[in-house]
Amino acid sequence: MSINFNQAKSAIATEIMERLHLLAQHTEQDGMMTRTYLTPAHRGAAGQIAAWMRDAGMSVRRDAVGNVIGRYEGTNEKAPVLMTGSHFDTVRNGGIYDGLLGILLPISCIASWHQAGKRFPFPIEVVAFSEEEGVRFKAPMLGSRAIAGTFEQRVLKHTDDQGLTMLDAMKAADLDPSQIPAAAAARGSIAAFVEIHIEQGPVLLNEELPLGVVTAIAGATRYMLEFKGVAGHAGTVPMTMRHDAAMAAAEFALYVEQRCSRIPNLVGTIGQWNVPNGATNVIPGHVVLSLDVRAGDDAERLAATTDITAELERICVQRDVRSTMKKTYETSSAVCADWLQQGWHAALERIGCEVRSLPSGAGHDAMAIAAIAPIAMLFVRCGNGGISHNPLETMEMQDAALAADVFMDFVEHFDALSTSSKTE
Amino acid sequence: MSINFNQAKSAIATEIMERLHLLAQHTEQDGMMTRTYLTPAHRGAAGQIAAWMRDAGMSVRRDAVGNVIGRYEGTNEKAPVLMTGSHFDTVRNGGIYDGLLGILLPISCIASWHQAGKRFPFPIEVVAFSEEEGVRFKAPMLGSRAIAGTFEQRVLKHTDDQGLTMLDAMKAADLDPSQIPAAAAARGSIAAFVEIHIEQGPVLLNEELPLGVVTAIAGATRYMLEFKGVAGHAGTVPMTMRHDAAMAAAEFALYVEQRCSRIPNLVGTIGQWNVPNGATNVIPGHVVLSLDVRAGDDAERLAATTDITAELERICVQRDVRSTMKKTYETSSAVCADWLQQGWHAALERIGCEVRSLPSGAGHDAMAIAAIAPIAMLFVRCGNGGISHNPLETMEMQDAALAADVFMDFVEHFDALSTSSKTE
Repeated sequence: MSINFNQAKSAIATEIMERLHLLAQHTEQDGMMTRTYLTPAHRGAAGQIAAWMRDAGMSVRRDAVGNVIGRYEGTNEKAPVLMTGSHFDTVRNGGIYDGLLGILLPISCIASWHQAGKRFPFPIEVVAFSEEEGVRFKAPMLGSRAIAGTFEQRVLKHTDDQGLTMLDAMKAADLDPSQIPAAAAARGSIAAFVEIHIEQGPVLLNEELPLGVVTAIAGATRYMLEFKGVAGHAGTVPMTMRHDAAMAAAEFALYVEQRCSRIPNLVGTIGQWNVPNGATNVIPGHVVLSLDVRAGDDAERLAATTDITAELERICVQRDVRSTMKKTYETSSAVCADWLQQGWHAALERIGCEVRSLPSGAGHDAMAIAAIAPIAMLFVRCGNGGISHNPLETMEMQDAALAADVFMDFVEHFDALSTSSKTE
Repeated sequence: MSINFNQAKSAIATEIMERLHLLAQHTEQDGMMTRTYLTPAHRGAAGQIAAWMRDAGMSVRRDAVGNVIGRYEGTNEKAPVLMTGSHFDTVRNGGIYDGLLGILLPISCIASWHQAGKRFPFPIEVVAFSEEEGVRFKAPMLGSRAIAGTFEQRVLKHTDDQGLTMLDAMKAADLDPSQIPAAAAARGSIAAFVEIHIEQGPVLLNEELPLGVVTAIAGATRYMLEFKGVAGHAGTVPMTMRHDAAMAAAEFALYVEQRCSRIPNLVGTIGQWNVPNGATNVIPGHVVLSLDVRAGDDAERLAATTDITAELERICVQRDVRSTMKKTYETSSAVCADWLQQGWHAALERIGCEVRSLPSGAGHDAMAIAAIAPIAMLFVRCGNGGISHNPLETMEMQDAALAADVFMDFVEHFDALSTSSKTE
């Protein structure tokens, strides 16, 4: 059987938008969207999501890290699950669409199927991941890592700004940290994980496309750099005798920009720049920079960081400035499964949307789940230049409606049992 | 008559070095050289300097801004005075040679002439300027401006870190601010002003030369710049869609460096660099820079700032980044009188020193005195890479000895009455 899309489309999108705004009321700070791990606002949101899941015909469970998991049973209970979902925590003073869309959209779609009595030959689980942003305990993706079985026990010792450990915060929230290993999904139990998320960037907006299919979640390498030259009097040291740390940093930055601009899906960012105690009349002797390099393709990222490291050396030798470049973070890219991308393409074509593939420069829960299941993502266009992690974050209702259409079409054509042979 | 240089040379240089270290004891902070305007340390130093002036055969007066002026009478009391001197205030945690050398060196030379019964057909005045650095009341060159008649009454309202006005600080030090106009020297009363000062830069050190003749004190233009681009997620905004304020700033900085490197005595410095609230994973949307451009030749400085302004515009149009460039300070260069430079050259040659001319990138009291008299300066080599305004500031005794020789020779060949026709 098939539901009436034209009616459902409007009702589902309206419900999603209403619920996004309702959930925004669960915030730590009046007038701002801030919902960090296990705060009262966070627990309030979890309760509300669980209630909506139940209304949609799902059974609901909470695991040891606070993930809220709704299960819409299939006609074959033993079939591997089609898992979807995203996170319900936020950054400080963030937007209301980030994460939540990927929870509320499937819930409303399932409610629609439930109302129509529709069941699939596989169960669908919607996971509201409890923590992805890493704000409160400086450790991201706690929810998805627990399910992937990659949760690191040492982060339990991390403390929040008040000095409370994550372990104690979990106990206070009636969670049992000793049960975290049991939260991991069994290998083979997840047929696929698909995440719907706002793009958080300007690419779709710029091309006037509502939806995009993610090819890979970019790998990233981050560094902190220090340049040490010779401080001096801005008036008395001739240009030819200077060892200006800031000029070395500027030359380095422009190289990063130029090198990363050569390849479409490679990006390099110098986000922090600081001349400690800089004064107008003093030649900078010390500069601190951060560098963040990302690419959907790991080889492209590594080639870029190799070139950047070599250029740093060249610049510093030429200018007789010393530098250190310390790697602070590195993660490989997570490639979206080809057969799942094909599934999105087919759904987009059936719904009448142009197919646009793009990498995700931001990290997502799907990245963690990739450790145990094939993943894929559908991006929904953002407004306001693509801004996210910001109160200016927006998404249009008609784009949400299209995303719901595409998701429902994707699920209705999904074959959970055919995946094992296709899994990469 | 002529004194015995070989004996005097050693004695004078020893005395200068001893007194530099003795005066360093008049400091506000134990273990640091800090002596700001009208503090007890500053008043103690003034008293010590006055005593040494009297010992050297000079009559001493204190003017309304606290300058200590020693006069070594000439055979013709009506002749215009040969004025020399420098400042006895310091920056915070500075060096012991900056300023003081130009006071103590002439005192010791005059003591030597006095002992030998030597008089010149013109009076010599050694001015210990009370304030040059502008530390305590954020207003520099108070002492030399008073003598030049360019003291600005509004700075009397400036307050120090404790909220005390300069006016009240002067009264507490038994100075009468109403008498400041009377401190100005009459036009024509000063035949020339010559200042001996450490170079505060690396040029002489680098060329292994002890002394240098200053051609001009550089003019300077200072700006504060802001770049405003579009902040964004370091992972999700492709390089081609960025309006990165920091990259615009980097390109601008390298242009400043390249433009100022074209001409030997032009310098440009970006001393302050700041990405407010910069984060590793955020494309900078806002950057604040300072710019300081100096040249001995005003036309060269103005040509450079014109080019720099045009390039800023070009960069910002190309990158679609907005910028503001606000001039915060501008001062013209003070050219050293040609006939006085020739006087130094002749003295250097007679003493057997190589003649090296160079501009002064730093400001000096001579700059203010240039408003009423022809000026010239003799630079003495610094050690430690030329560092100054720093405890690491050094000067070798043998260089001080040579400077004393050159100064004495210069004075002995000076013709105070021939200057009017030569004055530029």
